[in-house]
Amino acid sequence: MYKNGITLLGGGLIGASWAALFLSKGARVTVYEPRATAEEEITAYIKTAWADLAKLNPLSAAVPWAQLSITTNLKTACQNPDWVQENAPDRLDLKQKLLKEVERYLPSDTPIASSTTALLPGAIQEKMRYPERLLVGHPFNPPHLIPLVEVAGGARTDPALLQQAKQFYEHFEREVIVLKKEAIGHVANRLNAALYREVVNIVANDIASVEDVDRAMIHGPGLRWAFLGPNLVYHLGGGAGGYAQYLQHLGPSQEARWRDLGTPELSNDIKEKLVNGLESCLNDASPAQLRAQRDAALVALLHLKKQLRPPSENA
Amino acid sequence: MYKNGITLLGGGLIGASWAALFLSKGARVTVYEPRATAEEEITAYIKTAWADLAKLNPLSAAVPWAQLSITTNLKTACQNPDWVQENAPDRLDLKQKLLKEVERYLPSDTPIASSTTALLPGAIQEKMRYPERLLVGHPFNPPHLIPLVEVAGGARTDPALLQQAKQFYEHFEREVIVLKKEAIGHVANRLNAALYREVVNIVANDIASVEDVDRAMIHGPGLRWAFLGPNLVYHLGGGAGGYAQYLQHLGPSQEARWRDLGTPELSNDIKEKLVNGLESCLNDASPAQLRAQRDAALVALLHLKKQLRPPSENA
Repeated sequence: MYKNGITLLGGGLIGASWAALFLSKGARVTVYEPRATAEEEITAYIKTAWADLAKLNPLSAAVPWAQLSITTNLKTACQNPDWVQENAPDRLDLKQKLLKEVERYLPSDTPIASSTTALLPGAIQEKMRYPERLLVGHPFNPPHLIPLVEVAGGARTDPALLQQAKQFYEHFEREVIVLKKEAIGHVANRLNAALYREVVNIVANDIASVEDVDRAMIHGPGLRWAFLGPNLVYHLGGGAGGYAQYLQHLGPSQEARWRDLGTPELSNDIKEKLVNGLESCLNDASPAQLRAQRDAALVALLHLKKQLRPPSENA
Repeated sequence: MYKNGITLLGGGLIGASWAALFLSKGARVTVYEPRATAEEEITAYIKTAWADLAKLNPLSAAVPWAQLSITTNLKTACQNPDWVQENAPDRLDLKQKLLKEVERYLPSDTPIASSTTALLPGAIQEKMRYPERLLVGHPFNPPHLIPLVEVAGGARTDPALLQQAKQFYEHFEREVIVLKKEAIGHVANRLNAALYREVVNIVANDIASVEDVDRAMIHGPGLRWAFLGPNLVYHLGGGAGGYAQYLQHLGPSQEARWRDLGTPELSNDIKEKLVNGLESCLNDASPAQLRAQRDAALVALLHLKKQLRPPSENA
């Protein structure tokens, strides 16, 4: 499968991580990256990612470098691949311009999936010659470790392509959800945003410190959410009657909390309070150190989840 | 420490779980529970919890039953304990009435911590004779496994008691946050509520199914939140410039998402959609089976977190 290989448009952190994942499952990968200096960064990233991937699945010791091309030439990158994954900076004008050029070189039916976080597929496809081939395939950072991929189409996306995308990402052992319609932030970043808005509100209103909000998460709800989605959590909170009983008895106290939630803005004062609050508890750990520790934790957690019987069939 | 023992007011799931935890660290425990039939339930719960606790810490094979009393007599339960943890049903009138009676038997300076989820300490203490001794010590279900305890005082709570409570729960290896002021839902359930409101909105608006929302969580953000709080997640999302860079560059797209979040109500139609959506993916697993799987997963995750170097000192 995917014999002709996969083309990645953009070789930043997301592109390099996708490259590691696709290579680890035997695909040929071509990375288009206009910065000529990027090659070293990309190969360094892949080396590190490879070591993490090897802890999760049997993998050759060496990265199959012969399977990887990195090029600054867009036309070269678009020689009849099976799949295009676009990871350019998340700006609409920039993506539209890039895809306009890409369509000059690409066969008319090659799927193009955008890794966009903030944009809608309907907007990205607006100026395309073949808009039906454009969809969103949104990963979480880092894509080679976090399994979730969110698939969404715009009004002009071929509906059959969404199922094709699901198969594509599942081939690479991703956990795929297909949105019923496009939405700002897709699903997971809407949940992120909803939660984060209240984080900001709690800090802005001096209910708790940045440090304590983060501690509350990792020692509280964050532990359950690694295994149980929020619906299932409340199902288990409902006793013998499950979710229906929960909603009947505790729905009103949810609604009381909803009415009390805040709607802060990210003013400069609040931004400063957030940054100062976080920095006071980092003890000078660099982002690179923290990222390495995050990835080690993710690898261990993914390993654990493989060993455990899932808490339910929907897990 | 805590030689005179701990009194638990209420022996439901939360009370029984607290009992297992306190017993496991050598405390004497008295459970007041008005239902005479509850004793069997409580001891069965403690037996199961004991097996899980033994996987996390060296523990005697047998539960030290001699350290546990269960009584239907409130006066007997209030013989000069070191600490009272109240776990009655979460209704203000009921708690106020119970504490009024408790104060007739208890020395005037014995701390009383309420496990309340939905009520404020300021409201609970309103009719107390010695309101300065009342605080919230809110656990997460099940308290013997989830480490978080949220401590909060009302306007009339003795401020020194909050630090005393922190020490008390830390003695039992809990992770404690002390709120700077009382708030509906404390901290973690405000975050839960904010996220859950958007879960309901996504399902109500047919953006994604109940099953896919839960899958998005456990394969996406839920993995990171077991180790990194939401502030730290965005710090790592900001590249070399960290949280400040994240807020500068991606703050506006957070705010764009905030503007698009929903404010649904838990109408009967939506409740039905949520319950049907969940049940369709449970494959007849009973709440008891799911709860056993949840606890096995939590034990394994807590074990893993002990082994890992924390991603930062604030972890």
